[in-house]
This record gives sequence, structure tokens and C-alpha cells, in this order.
Amino acid sequence: MITATIIGGSGYTGGEVLRILSQHAHVQVTQITSRQYLGQFVYQVHPNLRKQTDLKFISPDNLESTDICFLALPHGTVQSKIDAFAEKFTYIIDLSADFRLKDAATYKKWYGEDHQAPAWLDKFVYGLPEIYREEIKQAKYVSGVGCNATASNLAMYPLVKADLIDLSKPLIFEVKAGSSEGGASGNPGSHHPERSNVIRTYAAYGHRHTAEVMQILGSNNVSLTMTSVDLVRGALATGHATVKDGVTKKEIWGAYRQFSKDNPFIRIVKERKGIYRMPEPKILAGSNYADVGFDIDQENKHCIAICAIDNLMKGAAGSAVQCMNLMLGLDETEGMTFPGLHPA
Amino acid sequence: MITATIIGGSGYTGGEVLRILSQHAHVQVTQITSRQYLGQFVYQVHPNLRKQTDLKFISPDNLESTDICFLALPHGTVQSKIDAFAEKFTYIIDLSADFRLKDAATYKKWYGEDHQAPAWLDKFVYGLPEIYREEIKQAKYVSGVGCNATASNLAMYPLVKADLIDLSKPLIFEVKAGSSEGGASGNPGSHHPERSNVIRTYAAYGHRHTAEVMQILGSNNVSLTMTSVDLVRGALATGHATVKDGVTKKEIWGAYRQFSKDNPFIRIVKERKGIYRMPEPKILAGSNYADVGFDIDQENKHCIAICAIDNLMKGAAGSAVQCMNLMLGLDETEGMTFPGLHPA
Amino acid sequence: MITATIIGGSGYTGGEVLRILSQHAHVQVTQITSRQYLGQFVYQVHPNLRKQTDLKFISPDNLESTDICFLALPHGTVQSKIDAFAEKFTYIIDLSADFRLKDAATYKKWYGEDHQAPAWLDKFVYGLPEIYREEIKQAKYVSGVGCNATASNLAMYPLVKADLIDLSKPLIFEVKAGSSEGGASGNPGSHHPERSNVIRTYAAYGHRHTAEVMQILGSNNVSLTMTSVDLVRGALATGHATVKDGVTKKEIWGAYRQFSKDNPFIRIVKERKGIYRMPEPKILAGSNYADVGFDIDQENKHCIAICAIDNLMKGAAGSAVQCMNLMLGLDETEGMTFPGLHPA
Amino acid sequence: MITATIIGGSGYTGGEVLRILSQHAHVQVTQITSRQYLGQFVYQVHPNLRKQTDLKFISPDNLESTDICFLALPHGTVQSKIDAFAEKFTYIIDLSADFRLKDAATYKKWYGEDHQAPAWLDKFVYGLPEIYREEIKQAKYVSGVGCNATASNLAMYPLVKADLIDLSKPLIFEVKAGSSEGGASGNPGSHHPERSNVIRTYAAYGHRHTAEVMQILGSNNVSLTMTSVDLVRGALATGHATVKDGVTKKEIWGAYRQFSKDNPFIRIVKERKGIYRMPEPKILAGSNYADVGFDIDQENKHCIAICAIDNLMKGAAGSAVQCMNLMLGLDETEGMTFPGLHPA
Repeated sequence: MITATIIGGSGYTGGEVLRILSQHAHVQVTQITSRQYLGQFVYQVHPNLRKQTDLKFISPDNLESTDICFLALPHGTVQSKIDAFAEKFTYIIDLSADFRLKDAATYKKWYGEDHQAPAWLDKFVYGLPEIYREEIKQAKYVSGVGCNATASNLAMYPLVKADLIDLSKPLIFEVKAGSSEGGASGNPGSHHPERSNVIRTYAAYGHRHTAEVMQILGSNNVSLTMTSVDLVRGALATGHATVKDGVTKKEIWGAYRQFSKDNPFIRIVKERKGIYRMPEPKILAGSNYADVGFDIDQENKHCIAICAIDNLMKGAAGSAVQCMNLMLGLDETEGMTFPGLHPA
Repeated sequence: MITATIIGGSGYTGGEVLRILSQHAHVQVTQITSRQYLGQFVYQVHPNLRKQTDLKFISPDNLESTDICFLALPHGTVQSKIDAFAEKFTYIIDLSADFRLKDAATYKKWYGEDHQAPAWLDKFVYGLPEIYREEIKQAKYVSGVGCNATASNLAMYPLVKADLIDLSKPLIFEVKAGSSEGGASGNPGSHHPERSNVIRTYAAYGHRHTAEVMQILGSNNVSLTMTSVDLVRGALATGHATVKDGVTKKEIWGAYRQFSKDNPFIRIVKERKGIYRMPEPKILAGSNYADVGFDIDQENKHCIAICAIDNLMKGAAGSAVQCMNLMLGLDETEGMTFPGLHPA
Repeated sequence: MITATIIGGSGYTGGEVLRILSQHAHVQVTQITSRQYLGQFVYQVHPNLRKQTDLKFISPDNLESTDICFLALPHGTVQSKIDAFAEKFTYIIDLSADFRLKDAATYKKWYGEDHQAPAWLDKFVYGLPEIYREEIKQAKYVSGVGCNATASNLAMYPLVKADLIDLSKPLIFEVKAGSSEGGASGNPGSHHPERSNVIRTYAAYGHRHTAEVMQILGSNNVSLTMTSVDLVRGALATGHATVKDGVTKKEIWGAYRQFSKDNPFIRIVKERKGIYRMPEPKILAGSNYADVGFDIDQENKHCIAICAIDNLMKGAAGSAVQCMNLMLGLDETEGMTFPGLHPA
Repeated sequence: MITATIIGGSGYTGGEVLRILSQHAHVQVTQITSRQYLGQFVYQVHPNLRKQTDLKFISPDNLESTDICFLALPHGTVQSKIDAFAEKFTYIIDLSADFRLKDAATYKKWYGEDHQAPAWLDKFVYGLPEIYREEIKQAKYVSGVGCNATASNLAMYPLVKADLIDLSKPLIFEVKAGSSEGGASGNPGSHHPERSNVIRTYAAYGHRHTAEVMQILGSNNVSLTMTSVDLVRGALATGHATVKDGVTKKEIWGAYRQFSKDNPFIRIVKERKGIYRMPEPKILAGSNYADVGFDIDQENKHCIAICAIDNLMKGAAGSAVQCMNLMLGLDETEGMTFPGLHPA
């Protein structure tokens, strides 16, 4: 059995990694840390795991080496300790934002501080298998992904890859997302009476995930507008782009079809009838699927690209475990066969 | 114009008192206090009141006298200062739990501490007009009511008053309630991802409002089981009681019909068809109505009495303003004509 | 007392007109029709109105003349009967889509059928007082407004009016909306297990309200993408536009500030701190306010204009009653002082 | 591979059986029927199963024999055809209510009609493995369970089995439940604007599942009060009972502990701290666990027994597949290792 450590295990992302691995055939979590819940059973914090695990939260200070380590710590706290982590663990997947961007100056622009380990930026592969599968297979260090960036990137990347988009024109993304994106710690705006029933645009511009979209799609004219809605899990990205002259609906279909063929967790949703005609996060809670769809107004060369994900799965823990499978030479989908629920 | 002060105005109850009075023909709020939001416009905390009021939060330390004062402070903080408040304000309505119970020993049993002003307990009238209307008309000091107690009491009181209930048998109340009951300050359990989609029984026994139900209904064998559901405003109390021998459905109908006739904010909901056949808090948000209904299993002498309210209105601020109207000799319903929304 | 008739009173819009007028000082509803609920008390369908009205639904076939008539019938059913209605009622406000567009060809393009009374199109004024106040004051026939169009128009109109927008560039609107937009009749997609927890883009292009936005803003390059979220009442429109060269943030502020000054139901929401920093429909349920806000990325000349409304109020019944007040020479805000709830 | 047929596969229960079996190591669904969606891909109705199955809905008229058949048809439609089904399929699990009750007279009392196949009532085993495991292992015909009955029964059965309850006193159950209980077909009350934000007591008495609770617990003095809340999946049953003289908290603990030890899907939830201190359906969506808990007021001999389930899993499809595993001699938990999500 391959052994794994989860550092920062009381948060939602760490909990999801543990949930997935509790069903995994080849990897077993042997250590999970939390300073806040030290000594408590994991199921007291993640109550879904009662009768699934008897692990207790331990201190991150005296860990044993394991084959792989998932870092689920707050942004900015990993970079200064990365050398120590690398000494202890052969494979590392860092779910924070610390090693997502390739460029230290870009990091500073979006995160407001100097990067503490710029030399490590190149050692990490961006952990989105749909784009970097081959690199991930060879990697020891993989970065997690931003959930809103992932929904936006998976919506638009197939069209950019197929060279159908005019990148001199603005790429406008509107992302609508659930409350679990904010993590396990509350704030005044997450108090249920204030957070229920919202359609709350909390960032018109400037969301940090914008940098990841620019990096992946290769454009500097990207805006990401974030709107919270009344949902726990799920994010829907709607991207507005201008297609190149003469691009047809058929070409767009083709780009997505190829993308779905190449990737086990990509599904095209584009139905003419029924209730679920476009991608929807509603049916994806707990699943690692990313559902993609589109529409085009050929008269105005305006294309709408849509992607729905579970922000804690494909947007975080799911992609991370998918990367782990690739890094370890296992079946890419191992442990993530849960397809989501209908209804939910 | 009659002048009013709201002390503790940043909470939900204080905000509701202000909202109601902003439409009141005869009473005007001239002072509202908050230490936390000192100097901020009220509409920055209660955003519904933008363009309705230009009041700012002031300190509670240097208030001017006004005709009436609403105390919307945390439980336990009023009793030690009541003399000072009474010097400054002619009429006082205290929305905390400090003066709801008539007996200092009972207070200690349920709240765990000695009462700091037991001599004042008798000076306060319990602020439920449906039961104490005449006393309230004569009162200078009125206590607010517990929201869950109010739903429970209004459900069962008509039957107790009509002498239809066997009080030697247990009175079992199940109250289901929304998140605004917890007030404006968050806690780990009110974090949206944890509080959404719940059916959460957080108190099988021992909720403090039980004492108010015992006091009003005149029984010591009362249980109140509290369950939170996914809703912001609203409480539904379902009471299970044993009727006396020979009590008929017609007598029960009669008891509720009289209660509704005597009280402008009591409505009977008992329809044979349609969607809304029994009381439901869904349509009461913002309204001061208490909707009551019932059913009876005559074979087992088992009666189910139901009451729905908006916990912040009939269960708190609405009843308080209703009391104010009575104390000041105004029309009992003044300022509270909003009937609730359909759909909502 | 001025008398009013509501035709099609069992739907949500008709119910809201009745709710508002039940608090109106000068206008009284004397007739309300419904074939489906003929003979039933109105409160059996609109349960919030219990104890507020004893009206019963009557047949639309034998109505008496009243001063004003609200038509709350399905789209397409008014135009063929408009002459008969005009004979019976001096003032008519038609809440359907039949008389919103000025041009019969445009009507056919978006609604797919020939208009049955094209000669009447010019007799109706588009019922958005923020734009057509003076015309409405003189009108006998006023059309209701599309809710999504209204949110989009009120977001962007101040900037268009102030000549700050480059109308040669696309206007991209994303509207997120609650379930009451679909009306009171269910469909497979409105079944609660299927409609809860959704972020459902049901129309990437082609929503009929697009035509109203084009008409008001004076652009043919408008897209309106509709996304349903888990909410009953409320719509948020986010408009993306390109500002003209050199337009400053201060100019945009000025345009909105003037708009708010000129219109009693327009509020600017643009705060630096607190929970409610931008417009949100959450606090608008039951209110006629339209809250507007914006942000600008000057580097890319990209402006985001936002408007939140209650789709049944400012987006339908509220604007209609506001028009009625103007048509009848009454105070524009009469009957609509309810400011919405916090929390809700 | 063992083959299975699902008859009535477009509903929620049929869909859940298919979802579970799509992960099952030994059983494969080879036929699924729906007259309404004949010829459509299953994933067009159950969109979570896209890329999981290429099955299409077929007619129920010309089925091939398979090892096992799940009947997910409307109540009352199976009994008249049971002989034909039994000719075609060796093992049958009927998820309708047709074969749950042992007594034809009781069936008539609660369902209002004569049973069409009373001779078959004895051939079916009630499909609750926690009570009838040994009988199910020997059975060819197993009945599904009522979801509200299952939550109520699993809450109270451990105490009845341990002889701790005074069955001469009333057993009062309050069940709060989500909207998926109503099935996949909508009705006026399930329309999202009417069904959201509800605390709706739709049956004070007389819910048909009461009969199943009486049958299992051995009491005729049982009431079941049903209240709908705003949730898709989940049911919480709270049972109020009187314990026998002298019964201690420790004995009650013991009864539940034994029950949990004996049954892989039973978990006790009774924590002193944290958010999840009692059973909650929130974390059970998609899981087959039944979480049980309790509290006792020894002074009044009043015991509260609580059970939370996913109504479509432990309350329907999950228990059915668990029965299938037992009938076929497979591991009881096969295919149902998904533990539910946190948060959700």
C-alpha cells in the first residue's frame, strides 16, 4: 500500500482528499494533521467519515515520511517551508495557491507579496491533467488549481487549443459559485442569514484566479467576475469570447468532442430537450466530472463557453487525486468513480 | 411625534424595530446605538433601510431622554442597568430574556445565574398582547417574548384557555426554525456550508424558552425540541397534547375561532384544498401575523396544535411594537400592515 | 376611492398588484378574475392576503367598468381583445409582453407570430418611469416591463444617457434570476428536486427580453444570457460594456448619482466595507427599489454595470403600480413604502 | 456477472438503483424500462450517469429474463401483475408499497382499496436488513420500505427490541423530510416558488407509512406527523416515547451500541461538542447510512429517539440493493461505500 499524509486536514479540501482516498485501492492515508482539532477523531470534524476512518488529527510537527503528501494549508504558508516538506515526502501536491503561477512578478502582482521560494516555481507542474497530463506523469511536485480558474479554463481551453478564438479581443468570464469556495472558516458574510438567498457579486474584477486563467489561455485581456449564489458546492463559469472569422459551429463542436474523448472526466452537455440541457454543477456534487457546453451567435462572432464543476472536487481535491494517480502510475480515475447524484 | 430610542440597534431585532417604525405614523426613532458600528450609517448594517433613514449609530453612553426605549441587548446585560434606563425613559420594552419570567428561582434554573434585579420582575408585563392585552395597556415596562415560546404558546393557549386540554399529561412541542433565530453574530454552526440543507435537532430538551411555555400554559410537564431547518425567517411550533374526555373537534374549532376574532394578528389556517392548508412561516416573513391550525385524533384523544410565525416579527420586534402601540394608546396594528409575500 | 380591476389575478403578478393596492390610500381593487379558481377566496391562492381581503375570484366575462384595469394575462392573449378592454376601462396597464415593443416586425422576430393589433403599439407607453415618466403621466395605456430587461436597462441606461458607452461594441448582459420569474404554473424544470441548488443557464442567447434592452439602450449588439439560481424572488443583471475613450470613474459615479437623485426607487450601492457592497436582490423581496452599482477597468475601458431588483416588483407589479400612480396624478411612491427585509 | 432489470427506471428510486449498480462489482443492469422516455438514453433523464452508462429506456412489454428485477413502479400497480413478474425473474425486489404490510385488512385501511394479490403478502419479506437480515437471506421476494417508516423504525426499534419502551403509551413521531420523497413527477405544491423555504406540515395524521411503523414496533398507538422542509434529499425522524420504570440512560446507550455493532450501516451520533452532535440527513445524501441518536428526560420518563437517512438510499434504493446483496449471498455493503459529503 502506498502511504499518504494530509497536512491541514480539517479544512474542506483536506477532508475531500481523505474521503476520496478512503475508497482508493492502492493509497492509504496514514497521517492527517490539524492544530485546531489536535487529538480529535477526524469524523468529529468530517462527520461523513464516521465508521470510515479511525484516524485522529495529529500535530504537523513530528510527521513520519510517507510516499506522498497533500498540503492543504492556507495560501502563503507553504512557500517558506517547502524545502522541509520536500525532504520528508517524495511526492508533494500543494493545494494552496503558492506554486500555481510560473512567474514571481505575476505572483506579486496578484497576491501582493514577494514570493518566498521563487526557485521552486519551475519545479511545480500546474495540476490540471486535461492540459498537463504528460508533465504531471513525470512530476514530483504538482500544484493544485484554483476552482474558478479551472471552471473558466476548462470552458475555454478546447477552443483556444483548436485556435478558434480571437485572443486580441476581451475574454469575459462570469463565474457563479457556492459557499464552500470560501473554506471551512466563517466570516460575517458567510453567516447563514446573510449568505442565504444571495446573488452576490463580490468581485467585479481582481479575483486572484484571474492570473491562472491568463496563464493557461495566453491572454492578458481577461476579466473574471465572481458572483456567489445559494449553493454549497459547485461553480459555473460562463466565458464570452470572440471567435475568429469564419469559425463554424461544427468546428466548435469538434473541439469539445476531441477534448471529451481525450479526457475521462470531461463530458459535453448540449441537449435539445429535457431539463439538463447545459452544464450544471447541481448534479456534480462529489464527482470529479467537468461538464462543458457552448453556444455561438455567428452573426456577432460571439461564443459562449460554459463549464460546471464541483469546486471541491475537479476544482481542488479531485484534480489533486487525479494528479496523484498519474504521478504514481495508477489508473487516472481510481477512487473517483462516484458520478454525482440525481436529484440532489 | 412620539420619540423612540433603540439600544442595541445593529442586531436583527433592533433592525426590525427600526424598519417597522420607519413606516409608523406617530412614533419616530431619534436615536439608535451600536458600539461595534459607531458612527456608521444604519443602512450600512441594515441595507434594506438605505434611502429610508439617515440615522447613524451612536454610543449608548450619552443618550437623550425619549418617550420610549427598546432594549435589544444580549440576554443578561439589561437587568443590572435597569434602574438607569428607567430614569431616562418613561416607557421601556426589553427584548432580552431578562424580565420574561415572573420568578427569580425559575430564572436561575433555566439561565444558570442569579437574577440581578429580582424586584423588577413584577414590574414587567410579559409582552404577548394576545394574552396580556389589558395589562400591557397599563404598563410602563414590558418584556419581549421568546420566539419559540411564542409559537408554542399561541398554538396551544386557545385550547388551554377553553379548558380543553388535560394538563396532567405531557405537552410535547416540536419547533422547527430558521437561522435568524441565532441573531446577527455568527458561530461555526451558522457558517453557510454547515448550516445549509440542515434538519438539525440542536436541543432535544432544555431550550430556555421552555420556561416561558410552562409559565403561560400552566404546566410543568412541557418539552420543547428544537430543530433548525434551511430558512432564514420563520418558526413552526407543533404541539402534541391530550384533550379532556369528550372534547369534540367542534369545541376546538370554537376555541381558535374566538381567539382569532379577539386578536387582529391571529389567523386560522385550516383548508381542505390548495397548497397552503395549514400554518406556514413561508408566507409570514416580515409580517406580524401568527397563523394557527390544528388536527385531532379523537380515538386517542391526541390533539396537534400548530402555530407559524416570523420569529423576528411576532416572535420579537413585531410583538414589541404591538405592545408599544397598546402602551401609548395607539391603534394596535399601526405600522404593521405588511401582510407578507406570496411567493417568497 | 378610485376603483381597479385585476384580470388574471391568480398569477404571481396579479397577486402582487393586489397586495400593493391593499395598502394603497386612494385605489381599491373591486374585481379580480380567475377562471381556474372561480368562486374561491383570493386568500386561498394568495395565502398572505388572508384577513386582508374578502374578495373572491370572479369570471372575466361580465365585469363592471372601473377606473383602471391591470391585465395580468399570458403573453399573446391581450392583443386580440384590447379594443374590448379599452371600451370598459379608462386606464389600462398591460403586464404581458404584448405592447412592449414599438415595432411589429421586431415583435414578430422575437415572439414568432404576427402581432394582432399593430395599430395599438404606438398607443402604449413603455412602463418604466425612470425613463418615460413624463409620457406615462399623460398616458391612458401603459405596458408592463420585462423583469430581466428592466434589471439590464436600469443597470446600463444611466451610462448610455450620459453618453459614456461605446455602442459600437457589444453589450453583454448576464442575468441571474429566481424561480418566480417562471410564473405560477409549474413545469418539469420547476419541480423542487430539479430546481433546487441550480446554477442553470437556460438561455445563452435569444431570451425575448433582449428585444426590450435593444429598444431602450439603442443597440443591436446586445446579448442576454439567462441563468437560474436557487432563489424565489430576485434578479441581478450584470452588464459588460466598453466605455468611450477617456471616460473616468468620476463621470460614471456622476451618471448614477444623477439617476438616483431623479428617481425615488433608484439607490446606488457601492460600499468599501460591510457585507452588502454591491446591489443584491436578497434584500429587495417585496420592495420596489432597483439598486444599481458599477465597477470599471480603465486600462481595458471595460465597465461592469449592475442592477438588482425584485422581479415581481420593480420587474413587474411594482413598476406597474408606480405607473398607475403617475397616470392618476398620485404620489409616485404611494402604496410601495415597504423597504424589504434584513435578513431575509 | 449477475444480470438485473429495473422496471420504472425514470423515477428517482429506479435511477438510484442504477447509479448504485453502476459501481457494483458483481451485478450489472442490462435492462431498464420507461414508457415515458422510451428510446432515450438514460443519462438524458438521470444526467449524473452521462459517461457511466449507454443504456436506453426500453418498453416493459418484451423483457428478457434476468437474475433479479427491481420494480420501481407506482403504488398499486404491481400487485395485479406479480405472477407475471415472478415467472420472468428469479429474485424480485418491489420498491412500491404493495407488499410491505402483512395483513390485507390493514392494507385496505391505509390504502383504501382491496389488495389484488393477498396470497402474495406472506411470500414477501419486509426489506429492512437491520430487522429481517436472516429472512432476507433466504428470500426470493423482498419488499422495499417506506422512507419515513424506515427513519421512524430505525430510531425506535433498538429500544423496543431491548424492551425499554412502555408500549401502552403513545409513540409520537415527527418526521421532517425533503422534496425528493414526492417522486419525480411534479404537482402544484412542488413548484419551486411554492416549495422553497417551507416548513410545511402536510399530514398531521394519517400518513400511510404509519402502518409500517405500527407493524414493526408492535403498537397501535402510533402517530406520524409529516413536515416538509427545504431540502432535496433527507429525512429526520424524531420519536417521542415513554420508557419503562427505572430505565437508565446507560441501558439506552447499550441498546443503540449493540444495534450499531450488528449492522454495518447504522452509526450512533451523540457528541458533546462540534457542529454535528446528533443525526443529520445533511451529510447522508447518496449514502446508505442511517445515523441514530437519542436523549432522555428521566424525571418524566420521556425518551427522544432520532434517526437520519437519505430517503432515496436507506429509505428506498439503498436498502433495496442491500437486500439484493443478502439475497444473492454477496457482501452486504457491496456497491454502497460512498460515505456522503461534507460539506454538502
